Amino acid sequence: MPSLIRLYLDQPLAEGQTLALDPAQSHYVANVMRRGAGAPVEVFNGRDGAWAAEIVEARKKAVTLRALRQVAPQRMPPDLWLFFAPIKKARTDFIVEKAAELGAARIVPVQTDHTNSERVRRDRLQAHAVEAAEQCGGTYVPEVAEMAPLSAILDDWPDGRQLMFCDETAAGRSTAAEDLGQAGPGPWAIVIGPEGGFSEAERKRLRGMEAAVPVALGPRILRADTAAVAAITVWQQALGDWR
Amino acid sequence: MPSLIRLYLDQPLAEGQTLALDPAQSHYVANVMRRGAGAPVEVFNGRDGAWAAEIVEARKKAVTLRALRQVAPQRMPPDLWLFFAPIKKARTDFIVEKAAELGAARIVPVQTDHTNSERVRRDRLQAHAVEAAEQCGGTYVPEVAEMAPLSAILDDWPDGRQLMFCDETAAGRSTAAEDLGQAGPGPWAIVIGPEGGFSEAERKRLRGMEAAVPVALGPRILRADTAAVAAITVWQQALGDWR
Repeated sequence: MPSLIRLYLDQPLAEGQTLALDPAQSHYVANVMRRGAGAPVEVFNGRDGAWAAEIVEARKKAVTLRALRQVAPQRMPPDLWLFFAPIKKARTDFIVEKAAELGAARIVPVQTDHTNSERVRRDRLQAHAVEAAEQCGGTYVPEVAEMAPLSAILDDWPDGRQLMFCDETAAGRSTAAEDLGQAGPGPWAIVIGPEGGFSEAERKRLRGMEAAVPVALGPRILRADTAAVAAITVWQQALGDWR
Repeated sequence: MPSLIRLYLDQPLAEGQTLALDPAQSHYVANVMRRGAGAPVEVFNGRDGAWAAEIVEARKKAVTLRALRQVAPQRMPPDLWLFFAPIKKARTDFIVEKAAELGAARIVPVQTDHTNSERVRRDRLQAHAVEAAEQCGGTYVPEVAEMAPLSAILDDWPDGRQLMFCDETAAGRSTAAEDLGQAGPGPWAIVIGPEGGFSEAERKRLRGMEAAVPVALGPRILRADTAAVAAITVWQQALGDWR
């Protein structure tokens, strides 16, 4: 049995609705996966759950579907944002993919004092988030925001959003991950530093914020991509929807 | 200041000890990193902690060091083994790297009913584990074992070793990650299935084992590499050295 194709579409979904795929999705369905009229496809738009659909017409650059019925309810992730400093391309892609899989609502690349400012292509990262949701049976795609300076983000920190701050230099002074649950639910963000760590000024500022909860991720130094996955896991278990 | 080179050496370390690097390490130190006589290097052998050393002679294919003094104690990971079904090359490499960073003692690729049996090159995976330890300030390199069939591993399951079994098909019947700590410390293993999941026969066998503790990793389906990182994080927090 061929595997079921899942596609994210930014279109309304309703019974009998005709859905036109864009050229890239059409190419994937018709040429790469070689599916034709009548073949099943699952679609979601981030709002209306997952829908069974079928191919009505499969031209090489223009595939049309018809939505049949909702097969899974919409499931939103917890209100968790991830701020991370971009690193090498493959590891940056990886962080976005994993944050989408593990259940973050919003992903924001940040410029820190020690970030090697490679340009970040927001559209490419957004495509990774879409692919992760498609592959993992998700119904929600986290928004990937444009890169912004960490200082500007902290200047405008939203009221009431707590900040899990992963600082490997402060193991002794940090909250153990197992105690994170005591910090309480509500909107949260995780901030992961760059490979070289935060600068002293950034660390001081983060630690001085009322919203900040420093959390230690074990006794080893983790790479930034590992820290991102571990931090989201710890948060989901303590405060998110893994409980 | 140039970054400090860290190298894993399978040689005894003691004050004044002369250390001959192999051709690949010599090439890296002398040609890639362009370090010469007198330059500092940090070395570890998985037994004697981390040692400061200096370059005595830097020929292109034969670099010699002298060990000066121990700078960090040996730190062993908890007695945690990771069994995983190899997937695509990049993701397999990633699992090994992350397991080494997060603190597993032994890593074993397993052949399952649904494993697409790409050949696994043990030496290449072992090199990834070495590199992870070198990059992350570790003093221990987990052994990567030869690939073995899951059925043979379960036939010979060691007495007293508990098994955290990540089964996404059994969310309701599984132990929540937060309750894992109640299973108690001691030797453990984590087993992660392949992309297509375990077969029904494998799942039945695993669930029937006295040593097995099925654990749910949240409400989303995770890719195998994501599941490996999340599972080690959950275990380290509940039963390992992140407590």
